[in-house]
Amino acid sequence: MLWASLVIENIGCLWTMDGAGAHGVGAIDDAVVLIDADRVAWVGPRAALPVPDLRGVPRVDAGGRAALPGLIDCHTHALFLGDRADEFARRARGESYAQIMAAGGGIRSTMRAVRGATIEQLCDATRPRLRRMLERGVTTVELKSGYGLNVDSELAMLRAARRLGDEDGIDVVTTLLAAHAIPPEHEGDASAWIDVITKDLLPHVAREKLASACDVFVEQGAFSAEQARPLLRRARELGLAVRVHAEQLSRSGGAALAAELGARAAGHLEHITAEDVEALAKAGVVCEVLALAQVFLRGQRATPGRALVDGGCTVAVATDCNPGTAMSTDLPLAAGLAVTQCGLTAEEAIAGVTVNAARALGLIDRGVVAAGKRADLVILEGATPLDLVYRWSDARAHAVVARGRVLAPPSSLVDA
Amino acid sequence: MLWASLVIENIGCLWTMDGAGAHGVGAIDDAVVLIDADRVAWVGPRAALPVPDLRGVPRVDAGGRAALPGLIDCHTHALFLGDRADEFARRARGESYAQIMAAGGGIRSTMRAVRGATIEQLCDATRPRLRRMLERGVTTVELKSGYGLNVDSELAMLRAARRLGDEDGIDVVTTLLAAHAIPPEHEGDASAWIDVITKDLLPHVAREKLASACDVFVEQGAFSAEQARPLLRRARELGLAVRVHAEQLSRSGGAALAAELGARAAGHLEHITAEDVEALAKAGVVCEVLALAQVFLRGQRATPGRALVDGGCTVAVATDCNPGTAMSTDLPLAAGLAVTQCGLTAEEAIAGVTVNAARALGLIDRGVVAAGKRADLVILEGATPLDLVYRWSDARAHAVVARGRVLAPPSSLVDA
Repeated sequence: MLWASLVIENIGCLWTMDGAGAHGVGAIDDAVVLIDADRVAWVGPRAALPVPDLRGVPRVDAGGRAALPGLIDCHTHALFLGDRADEFARRARGESYAQIMAAGGGIRSTMRAVRGATIEQLCDATRPRLRRMLERGVTTVELKSGYGLNVDSELAMLRAARRLGDEDGIDVVTTLLAAHAIPPEHEGDASAWIDVITKDLLPHVAREKLASACDVFVEQGAFSAEQARPLLRRARELGLAVRVHAEQLSRSGGAALAAELGARAAGHLEHITAEDVEALAKAGVVCEVLALAQVFLRGQRATPGRALVDGGCTVAVATDCNPGTAMSTDLPLAAGLAVTQCGLTAEEAIAGVTVNAARALGLIDRGVVAAGKRADLVILEGATPLDLVYRWSDARAHAVVARGRVLAPPSSLVDA
Repeated sequence: MLWASLVIENIGCLWTMDGAGAHGVGAIDDAVVLIDADRVAWVGPRAALPVPDLRGVPRVDAGGRAALPGLIDCHTHALFLGDRADEFARRARGESYAQIMAAGGGIRSTMRAVRGATIEQLCDATRPRLRRMLERGVTTVELKSGYGLNVDSELAMLRAARRLGDEDGIDVVTTLLAAHAIPPEHEGDASAWIDVITKDLLPHVAREKLASACDVFVEQGAFSAEQARPLLRRARELGLAVRVHAEQLSRSGGAALAAELGARAAGHLEHITAEDVEALAKAGVVCEVLALAQVFLRGQRATPGRALVDGGCTVAVATDCNPGTAMSTDLPLAAGLAVTQCGLTAEEAIAGVTVNAARALGLIDRGVVAAGKRADLVILEGATPLDLVYRWSDARAHAVVARGRVLAPPSSLVDA
């Protein structure tokens, strides 16, 4: 006997993103979703509803609006303190990143702010960003460490991320990215910091289950593929998934390394070659298109999203939200930019922030609307799911269902 | 004796945009603005406040936040009905605009929707967009006609725009853009439609003061500079300002025409030459950078904003909000994109949506915060005005002052 604790009805057009039908979006018109506590119990067209009598069950009327699975932002650095607006302005005036670094700016300014903060301060600074994500329908977000850059502060970042995940409507997945940059204590000696991560930090993180994946920024000036390999191998042995920041500013071997290690995901990929695409596809590495960062960085080349899809890769789309190169929490905008800048279709971009983003995080319980999956949904304001990628910066949610709980953003301006 | 009906105090950093000080932004720390009804009575640092006793005067505490003049979106097609999300998806799948037009899509689908609507329906469809603009701090918006494409429907669009301006917190400036496209009734005969506009529509618009400017889309497939010239000359004789859509998709002579006629503004300018820049600067034509449209259109080249500024042009920034090529109401995002895509500095982009946007509309009573000007301000959420261009899609206002009236967007997610 099917039991429902909540009914979402009158969904004009639901894309389940389960791969069925035209463009694989699993479109259902006049859809109903039955929810039992935090899980979907049934989904289908009203005409096929298996429970004739739903009297007494609380219901949400979607008013003919469109709905999608709760969105998943699978690559972010949204956990941080401090501000780099001034750096944005200086770069716009023509200063180089090297000049800004020399003046104490860049990633080290965020590092100083994070090192000086308590876990509570980290949470307080990050909470409004997660709230904005949730308002746009994001029900799961990945948060990376990588601004602490010493053992204590990296652990503090991961603990703050865990705490935010416990307390909020948005679910949090954590990634250790201690190898984000070379800390000042190890200036010019990337290997020394890799050693510290491998010997001191990683075992601690694995033991306390503070992160489900380990990530490395493979790039000139950061870490080479050779330096990253033993760290990521060790992470894998300790049960963490492997992720790689690959080929963002130059071709540095990150994509090949991700393929070699069977990484769960590789992000950026602006400078990949056809050979890299083939290797990533063969290894089943989810490729993350981070179009906001591309557009935010002046003169950056576009990730060849079309070539990735055509080459057989699974493509996810994420904000890369961070204070230096992508100061935005807007995942729908990132998806829209992935269409116009990286050649994805609208449907591929929407798959990139739902079903494929779940794959990038190794989550099999979400990313689609289907019986048994988490009850995570976004009800859009308009009648078509395409609005998510079409209405730039205006794709606010009418309502969000996060683990069966219904949240509604307030919508009207009031006299103060 | 200075009189104030409202005090805005504790503004951490106000940029008056009056051209003073570093980067011409007129920065005032710990600023106070005294408002008398709908005008600014005084602005300056708290320490210089000329009125020692403000007891009894209503006050707004900005809480140390940053503030700017109310934003001005000086080039939009935000008055429309219908939706072209499907067209966006089809273009992403590789269909050409010509194919979409042949299938009944493109601008003609918007035209059909607009022709079939009453003035009330036009207002109802547009009002939510104006509301979103206002929530981001836009206190003045230009609305163009151009989807009616016959005499009655063009007049209906302008009347709807006037009505929206009368009723809402956002002020509306109207532009006649009947020469936006060739209507189906005059297929292949642009001159015939130009004749109708010149003889039937323009005198009517001038007599009823339905628009303050006349605009033409000078482009291959739309109207040549030769066809536009007599229409714009006639508009000028009738007291309307001249505006031109110039050099968007190809170099078609729109910029030179704008300079020749002493146009108030020329928009787009993706394909201008050094010669055009010189002519626009010499003629004092305000150049509108419409970066959202560039990024929304796949493969479109960027407007050389840097070259315009360096060449001595006054540069404004606008959304170009429209259902086909820039489906967004986000003026701060347009300004952010003008920085990264078109080479403006952050300060120039902010001038582009305030003081220079006022110039593009010929409005001398706004665009800066100064005594005697309209009391239009936006109080941002953060401490620096740079947030406007730095926090993409997240630059919501903490509060908006529109003609002395204080509005606050609601900010927290609630249980439904």
